[in-house]
Amino acid sequence: MPADSLSSALLPAGLHDVLPPEAAHEAAAVARLLADFTAHGYERVEPPLVEFEDNLLSGSGAAMAKQTFRLMDPLSQRMMAVRADITPQIVRIATTRLKNGARPVRLCYAGPVLRVKGSQLRPERQITQVGVELIGPLEAEADAEVILLAAHALEGVGVRHLSVDLCVPTMVARVCRGLGLGEEETARLREALDKKDAAAVSAVGGPAASLLQTLMAASGPAERAMEVLSALPLPETAEKDRRRLTDALRLLRAARPDLTITVDLVEHRGFEYQTGLSFTLFARDVRGELGAGGRYRAGVRPGVEEEGEPGTGFTLYMDTLLRAVPAPEPAKRVYVPHGTSWAAAGKLRAEGWITVAGLAPVADAAAEARRLDCGHRLDGGTVTPLT
Amino acid sequence: MPADSLSSALLPAGLHDVLPPEAAHEAAAVARLLADFTAHGYERVEPPLVEFEDNLLSGSGAAMAKQTFRLMDPLSQRMMAVRADITPQIVRIATTRLKNGARPVRLCYAGPVLRVKGSQLRPERQITQVGVELIGPLEAEADAEVILLAAHALEGVGVRHLSVDLCVPTMVARVCRGLGLGEEETARLREALDKKDAAAVSAVGGPAASLLQTLMAASGPAERAMEVLSALPLPETAEKDRRRLTDALRLLRAARPDLTITVDLVEHRGFEYQTGLSFTLFARDVRGELGAGGRYRAGVRPGVEEEGEPGTGFTLYMDTLLRAVPAPEPAKRVYVPHGTSWAAAGKLRAEGWITVAGLAPVADAAAEARRLDCGHRLDGGTVTPLT
Repeated sequence: MPADSLSSALLPAGLHDVLPPEAAHEAAAVARLLADFTAHGYERVEPPLVEFEDNLLSGSGAAMAKQTFRLMDPLSQRMMAVRADITPQIVRIATTRLKNGARPVRLCYAGPVLRVKGSQLRPERQITQVGVELIGPLEAEADAEVILLAAHALEGVGVRHLSVDLCVPTMVARVCRGLGLGEEETARLREALDKKDAAAVSAVGGPAASLLQTLMAASGPAERAMEVLSALPLPETAEKDRRRLTDALRLLRAARPDLTITVDLVEHRGFEYQTGLSFTLFARDVRGELGAGGRYRAGVRPGVEEEGEPGTGFTLYMDTLLRAVPAPEPAKRVYVPHGTSWAAAGKLRAEGWITVAGLAPVADAAAEARRLDCGHRLDGGTVTPLT
Repeated sequence: MPADSLSSALLPAGLHDVLPPEAAHEAAAVARLLADFTAHGYERVEPPLVEFEDNLLSGSGAAMAKQTFRLMDPLSQRMMAVRADITPQIVRIATTRLKNGARPVRLCYAGPVLRVKGSQLRPERQITQVGVELIGPLEAEADAEVILLAAHALEGVGVRHLSVDLCVPTMVARVCRGLGLGEEETARLREALDKKDAAAVSAVGGPAASLLQTLMAASGPAERAMEVLSALPLPETAEKDRRRLTDALRLLRAARPDLTITVDLVEHRGFEYQTGLSFTLFARDVRGELGAGGRYRAGVRPGVEEEGEPGTGFTLYMDTLLRAVPAPEPAKRVYVPHGTSWAAAGKLRAEGWITVAGLAPVADAAAEARRLDCGHRLDGGTVTPLT
């Protein structure tokens, strides 16, 4: 049902009412995703919508500071913040409330986040995030597990032509460090790589130019990229990143030889807080990312990188995801005329019907059924299709 | 897992992390409630967490003004409010976006609300509300439908010893008006009735004293209350309320002769925005209301009572509700050792197991399974219980 202009004006930009049947469709998809996470041993947690600002925006939460609404708490007289991202909350739970629990910790979540401004790619200011965090293990098996889980869950809700784009956002910096580049040169190089500008990479790359151009050119289908990468004379500083990519890909391929996997060897944007193997999830012909994830250190104070536990996970964005999921079957609605017993209608519901009760007698039951968007009506005890 | 004192201090008072297994338990209960609403023809809608203040707090929303957090919207430079109640949003959707849709409109919802302060009975400041609204019909059949639905849905998630307390919050005022009492006298009488103070009712009741004392004393099990009510010489102004109560109870009894129903003939508190038959849902031995609902006028501007469409519905409070629901069965977790194929673990999940993967080889698989809270482990291709 299209919103008229009056209705649109009722809500702030970037905020929407989700109407029938979309709201039920979204809820069903969220429930199926979480059921799949649960089957893989991920346990649900539900942090609150608001927290103290200084907790919510510490560590990796700081990335969202400009996108976060603040509220004054009259009880504590302290500033609170409305979450703009759920991941920092899950990490907080794992490293505080569950800090004495067995490792690895597997947690999953679903819920709304609120952002001060939308972006061009995502104008919505309220987004439903659904995801998992796996905290504790260092092994490549952990990277493979969350990527396989993301793929399985997405395909389970009907996403087709899924593609997983792997990257190691730390690699370029490590290559540059290994080849003796300074911070300023690395930053300039990074900018050139972000623009995929081979000429600029050559101009500012110094001793790293040739290597980085090769990495940039090799990005694409996973097997080809890894073939190039494995033959490259990488500095020792980047060896760990190459090994992790190789190990994770081997595990992914063992489980899912059919999965479309690409590798971007110079990707960095959007992964500023990631510390190792990361990934983005796409569906062919669907605009925007379905989700993203990767390695981080959990429970790290700003500037103290050695701290914290290794973690990985991913977040799915329901707005994009729903564009990649087929529309649901129309509901099986049966009109149940006035005077039908509660038990008789209950029997139909138990058979899977949606019953729509007539609250008063009507002259033309078929017309009334049609008016109420029912494809069937109960007529003399029998479910009859409308003709 | 009990929160330690450090963790408790992390969150503002009245806000909580819901941890395993409670978060999954709550989500499952919400999903079952909504599935039942859907089976009865109620379609899900999902309004946003925040709206413009002047919209959200108009009409019945005004009741929550003091309990509502405000945010400045930098885009529109207007004040927004975080919802403290979902019902006004559903009514807004029905009367604006869906105003041209067929009547009755049946809508359902679930989601969090945020409140500035908790109350003694409900210290939580974030609450999950789940409910339905039925907008359009005047008939007693509509009152009966939503009450029967509330009872069915609550029993469906495992609530036992449910009790429905009916009231007609307009009745006392209509009796007083019919007997010629002024506004001030009515208010004093109301206060006495709220305290169930028979002596005060007698002292300030004037010509209504005897009638109201009888109504107060008759409150209790539905059939007895209705027997008293039907024999009373009510003024014409209150006749409509008596008839509605009689009709609704007849419909409820036809469907559910077994349901515990009580009637409070003088109840008023908490129903200031209700315009007719209302109800509260309790479970024996469970502190607080599971939910409440009743009649209102939808789309009414303040002070214009003739406006708007008739509506009824109810809201369930998940915090109270979960106290009335049995704890879930422990999950069937099986430890799947390192090296188990993706396909083999998937087969176990398809059989209903929760698989917990070992991410590295271990010397003692049984000890590892136990450490990871699994009751079983996969051993040589066979699921084996831990001894």
